[in-house]
Amino acid sequence: MSRTPLHPTREQIELPMVLDCLSDPIRLAIVYQLAQQERVSSELCCGDFNGLAGKSNLAYHFAKLRECGLMQTRVAGTNRFMRLRREDLDARFPGLLDAVIKSASKDAERLQLMAECEVVEAG
Amino acid sequence: MSRTPLHPTREQIELPMVLDCLSDPIRLAIVYQLAQQERVSSELCCGDFNGLAGKSNLAYHFAKLRECGLMQTRVAGTNRFMRLRREDLDARFPGLLDAVIKSASKDAERLQLMAECEVVEAG
Repeated sequence: MSRTPLHPTREQIELPMVLDCLSDPIRLAIVYQLAQQERVSSELCCGDFNGLAGKSNLAYHFAKLRECGLMQTRVAGTNRFMRLRREDLDARFPGLLDAVIKSASKDAERLQLMAECEVVEAG
Repeated sequence: MSRTPLHPTREQIELPMVLDCLSDPIRLAIVYQLAQQERVSSELCCGDFNGLAGKSNLAYHFAKLRECGLMQTRVAGTNRFMRLRREDLDARFPGLLDAVIKSASKDAERLQLMAECEVVEAG
C-alpha cells in the first residue's frame, strides 16, 4: 500500500514560497540535481542525495520542496522517488525554473551544488 | 555632503541571498515597481513606495534589497533614490530578474504588487 503525501495543486503554487524554498543552498542543490537528471530519468530516490546532508535534514528539505510545489514525491514501498514538477512550474511561472537552474549552474562550484554528489556514480 | 551606503560588488552578489530577498512579498513589490518604472526613469524615491508599507518597514526592506545586490541606493540631501542593478544582475544571473518579474506580473493581483501604489499618481 502506498500513501501519497500532500502536494499543492498547480494553481496553489505561490511565487514567494517557491523563491523562499529555492533560497536555501541545500534545496537549491536538490533542485539542481533533479534538473540535471531530467535528461536521463525524471525521478531520483532519496538515497541519491545522501552526499548533500544527513537523512533527517534531507527529509525536512524534501518536505519543503514538496509543500511549495517544486517537487513531486512518489512513495513506493519503503522508497520515495522525487521529480521536479516542471510542467506545473513552467505553466505557472514561465522561464523561472530554467533561469534559476542556469544561474545556479554558473555558480555551481561556489554553491557546492554537486559536492559529494552520488547521483552520477550510480550503477 | 552625501553618504553612499554599502553595496556588494557584482561578484559578491549571491544567488541564495537574491532569491531569499525576492521571496518577501513587499520586496517583490518594490522590485516589480522599480522594473515597471525602468521604461520611464530608472530611479524611484522612497516616498514612491509609501502605499506598500510603513516608513520604517520600507527602510528595512530597502536595506535588504541593497545588501543583497538587487538595488542601488543613491543619497541626495534628505532623499534616497533607488534603482534596480539590472546590468549587474543580468551579468551574474542571465534571465533571472526578468523571469521573476514576469512571474510576479502574472500573479500581480494575487500578490497585491500594485496595491495602493502611488508611483503612477505622481505629478
